[in-house]
Amino acid sequence: MSHGLLATIQSPKDLRRLSATELVQLADEMRDALCSVVSDRTAHFASNLGVVELCIALHLEYDFSRDRLIWDTGHQIYPHKLITGRYHEFPSIRQKGGLMGYPNPAESDYDLFMTGHAGASVSTVVGLKAGDDRLGHTDRRAVAVIGDGALPSGIVFEAFNHAAGMDQNVLVILNDNKMGICPRTGGLAHYLDKARTAPMYDAVKRDISWALKQVPIVGESVEKALHGCKEALKASLTQGMLFEELGFRYVGPVDGHDIATLREYLKMVKDIKGPVLLHVFTEKGHGFEPACADPVMFHTPPPFQRKDDEVVSIKKSSSRAYTDVISEVIYGEMESNPKVAVITAAMCEGNKLGKVRETFADRFYDVGICEGHGVAFAGGMAKAGMRPIVDIYSTFLQRSFDQIFQEVALQNLPVTFCLDRAGVVGADGPTHHGAYDNTWMRVFPNMVCMAPGDEADCGPMLRFALAHSGPTSLRYPKTTAETVARNVSPMELGKAEVLSWGVDGTILCLGALLPVCVKVAAQLRSEGLDVGVVNARFLKPIDEEVLARAISETGFVVTVEESSLVGGFGSAVMEAANAAGLSTDTIRRLGIPDRYIQHADRGEQLAEMGLDYAGILRTCIEAAGRRVAGEMAHA
Amino acid sequence: MSHGLLATIQSPKDLRRLSATELVQLADEMRDALCSVVSDRTAHFASNLGVVELCIALHLEYDFSRDRLIWDTGHQIYPHKLITGRYHEFPSIRQKGGLMGYPNPAESDYDLFMTGHAGASVSTVVGLKAGDDRLGHTDRRAVAVIGDGALPSGIVFEAFNHAAGMDQNVLVILNDNKMGICPRTGGLAHYLDKARTAPMYDAVKRDISWALKQVPIVGESVEKALHGCKEALKASLTQGMLFEELGFRYVGPVDGHDIATLREYLKMVKDIKGPVLLHVFTEKGHGFEPACADPVMFHTPPPFQRKDDEVVSIKKSSSRAYTDVISEVIYGEMESNPKVAVITAAMCEGNKLGKVRETFADRFYDVGICEGHGVAFAGGMAKAGMRPIVDIYSTFLQRSFDQIFQEVALQNLPVTFCLDRAGVVGADGPTHHGAYDNTWMRVFPNMVCMAPGDEADCGPMLRFALAHSGPTSLRYPKTTAETVARNVSPMELGKAEVLSWGVDGTILCLGALLPVCVKVAAQLRSEGLDVGVVNARFLKPIDEEVLARAISETGFVVTVEESSLVGGFGSAVMEAANAAGLSTDTIRRLGIPDRYIQHADRGEQLAEMGLDYAGILRTCIEAAGRRVAGEMAHA
Repeated sequence: MSHGLLATIQSPKDLRRLSATELVQLADEMRDALCSVVSDRTAHFASNLGVVELCIALHLEYDFSRDRLIWDTGHQIYPHKLITGRYHEFPSIRQKGGLMGYPNPAESDYDLFMTGHAGASVSTVVGLKAGDDRLGHTDRRAVAVIGDGALPSGIVFEAFNHAAGMDQNVLVILNDNKMGICPRTGGLAHYLDKARTAPMYDAVKRDISWALKQVPIVGESVEKALHGCKEALKASLTQGMLFEELGFRYVGPVDGHDIATLREYLKMVKDIKGPVLLHVFTEKGHGFEPACADPVMFHTPPPFQRKDDEVVSIKKSSSRAYTDVISEVIYGEMESNPKVAVITAAMCEGNKLGKVRETFADRFYDVGICEGHGVAFAGGMAKAGMRPIVDIYSTFLQRSFDQIFQEVALQNLPVTFCLDRAGVVGADGPTHHGAYDNTWMRVFPNMVCMAPGDEADCGPMLRFALAHSGPTSLRYPKTTAETVARNVSPMELGKAEVLSWGVDGTILCLGALLPVCVKVAAQLRSEGLDVGVVNARFLKPIDEEVLARAISETGFVVTVEESSLVGGFGSAVMEAANAAGLSTDTIRRLGIPDRYIQHADRGEQLAEMGLDYAGILRTCIEAAGRRVAGEMAHA
Repeated sequence: MSHGLLATIQSPKDLRRLSATELVQLADEMRDALCSVVSDRTAHFASNLGVVELCIALHLEYDFSRDRLIWDTGHQIYPHKLITGRYHEFPSIRQKGGLMGYPNPAESDYDLFMTGHAGASVSTVVGLKAGDDRLGHTDRRAVAVIGDGALPSGIVFEAFNHAAGMDQNVLVILNDNKMGICPRTGGLAHYLDKARTAPMYDAVKRDISWALKQVPIVGESVEKALHGCKEALKASLTQGMLFEELGFRYVGPVDGHDIATLREYLKMVKDIKGPVLLHVFTEKGHGFEPACADPVMFHTPPPFQRKDDEVVSIKKSSSRAYTDVISEVIYGEMESNPKVAVITAAMCEGNKLGKVRETFADRFYDVGICEGHGVAFAGGMAKAGMRPIVDIYSTFLQRSFDQIFQEVALQNLPVTFCLDRAGVVGADGPTHHGAYDNTWMRVFPNMVCMAPGDEADCGPMLRFALAHSGPTSLRYPKTTAETVARNVSPMELGKAEVLSWGVDGTILCLGALLPVCVKVAAQLRSEGLDVGVVNARFLKPIDEEVLARAISETGFVVTVEESSLVGGFGSAVMEAANAAGLSTDTIRRLGIPDRYIQHADRGEQLAEMGLDYAGILRTCIEAAGRRVAGEMAHA
């Protein structure tokens, strides 16, 4: 398909010269552009197909060079990028140096916040509006677009409560496509499902007094009985009592794929005083049949070939990721121990827990994008005698920092945290890296923190965690699981696994970079440097005995971790050494530096940080005080 | 007043032998016991007076040796302690070795979770119930008591959503006393205020069909019009549409000071299937007139003398705390710069922001117990061009870890965080210490982290923060502000203030223990040890130049901070030294150890950790390799 119209859209202002028919044509071209990009890389897809018309209508009715717009979560930003001057760069999306797959203020003034974590849009928009109002820019309007998947996130209600309390002029558009990444759950889900069955009006209900007038007033007593009822009836007719009770004016529902109707509604809500929720129904994957049929798979599909409206082939990966390995271990443990339960936060798919959900439905809890609740809930379960596993990406688990502290660690309860995507994650970029957990997870007294060195560690480590009497955590990255050939040592609290000792130095590795470290050590040996490798396994408690020997008896110690160098494993090693009266002079630390790592391939990111084969090798050689010309040339 | 009945209550089972009249007498005795304890120490007061009858009724109708009960927040636990076997120990409350001022599982099996942070009770109760159900104990009932102050906390809605989705048999009692610590705010506040104006029924409405029958059905059209209205009317009559829409059955409101009525309601709701919200109206300070008249002051009043129902004298503190100093600086900055705004999370009183609220009402935002929203809101304001200050206790700011990451630090927005109560807090104990922020705040790229060394630093430091182009934080403890006599050096990014150099060693102090360190250095000099003192000021970026000199040119470096030794300032110092190729051999670190510090006086806590005068002195002497007999004897 040619993009004859789309290619001419330099800014949203260009939309205004298009006729209604041309706008429909533009939507088609935008969908085609979206389809093209996912044919050669993994990218967010179905949710973007769903908001094409909404995006066009918003940019027509508002002027977001002054007005404020936040897309929550940012992965539905693609159509917005296409019509805010980034069409020609669009093929570079999610690639190193190219456009980001999320909003990025560095790319465009139309992107206000870099957002990847769901739910905060209403808060930021309420803040933007408050700031604009204080600074005298009361004419600047403010809009948040939030999905029904993000809606139950607690921060959304906090923001609703605040906006309603201030009676602020802010518009929240509920983009209701019946799901987040997975089908939605919880009381709100039922609530929204009910709303679906209500009639959708094809004209704007500017005034519903006609409806109220249908209720005849028959004498005093009835009038009295109806008095309290009228307000309720009013909201009942508009299907939004929940939001009306919170203090929002509810408008809708409206068909999110009809540009003209959307514009009519947007025109209306612009002039309503106070906070408004506009309920828009969209279809995830709209306009591309296979995505509508399987929106979960097509949320972030692997690269696929299409012909017209059909998928010809999908390039599915055949490698086993850590996520797969861990989910299999979880499955096995749930099979053998009826006390084991698993809690996920709207990431059943990402955490590969589909089989667990099907087989152990009564011990599988998808709490939605509610990580704080999920962790406190797990604390309650553990107190009752269960062995809950909280399976959440490292970056999203940040949402429950305080509940990990108060409801789990302080109570010393046996909750096991599985931190998926711990480390750099590639194309998703800064919002999605699990970059900080080695630092913050170890700060809680009672917490035992671990990281498997390879696939062989996964089973024993998770079983160890489930047998431990207090809180435990294990972290693993978003990558293919590898195995280091060896006789695997049994898992013991606070014990590292020594793969080899070397007089010239020791690589002390926490986590899944272990196989690379083993390769580095082999190369070093071939170059005449006798460097040992230790699979640290435990971040906390740290193996002080092995550490003491590494420091005292080998030439150097290089710590390797895929987490921030600020307060992480390397720092824990130095703390332990210092406390034991050992010198840290020969220690060098490798990890994620103190800056945000931009989107790129995971391999590119590791290389950039010196955490790949070449980087670790280089650091060891430098630590040994030796320089090997050949290797340095690669650097 | 003699406690003739109360003294005989060994366990809640003993309540059952009391007559209705005796129960009223018991309530009076419990109030008297509460009044007695606050006459000689600061303790939570008004909220405890408000829940006496509710506590009695709950323990009568449930058996919490098997059933589950969580008081949210735990500071309203006193009446519960009085009737669960701890009356005789009650005078020891909030003192070292005595009862805790919060629930404490180590004291009693009736206390399930140690809770000090508001809002998580519903989540834990839902988790307890899920665990009990899975383990076959379906007869164990589960109850959360939550205040209207905690209600808007996002996690509460997350838990409601989950419980409703599971249609779980759980009871949430909304203890509605019209306020948290300060008067409530936001849309929910209006909502609950409306509920107040509804008639309170003095009998249980077991069936509201009578009410519906009052609405005559007059022909087809009216019937049709009324059809959608009936359900709405039903909930409207019971005042709980908001909760009903979420999937809870709403019951109430009911008078929380009428034991008999409360029991009747509790009997009823026990047998309702699915989640229930029971709305109870209580009066904060009930039974003690001065507390009812000023519930904010009497939330945690200073020690006072009373005679009957009158307060004879209040022992108000005359010293100026860091909180006072900072709030004055905030006031001054708001006066001179119209872009400065302040955000607090239901702690206007604790943060001493009353004057700011009154004078700058349009730039003062109390978001309620919604720290996550508060921070994201601040991010939005900063993006709009304002200079927001987020003024929240260190421990409560943990709730917004993820928003500090995504909405502020990642966006590099100029939000200033004032972390009050950073360090140990005395009688409140483990849930309230600000023990971890030196570790987690510095993990975010872009964040500048500071701590004033004394009162003189406060103004310049906050002004520096407000002039800085990115995110900043400053932390200060819950204690009296002191000043070190000196010519105060200007505040410069990443620059420490050297008070003195000494050849024998350097005390590198971050934060308000500085005056103690100065005294220690004076004592050491008098003992012949020439030890310098550095006011670090910046945790991040750290002053590498001063550090290098301290390590290279002085005998030892002792780092002093009132935050966790796990990844804190001391670790940052070692990281910087190591990265610069400097040895850490002479460094010793003082800070909060890796365990939970129990309630006691702040001075006792500091001494226990070696962070008082004697402890810092001892460490310096040890670091210098010298032992002074006299001092060691104190240790």
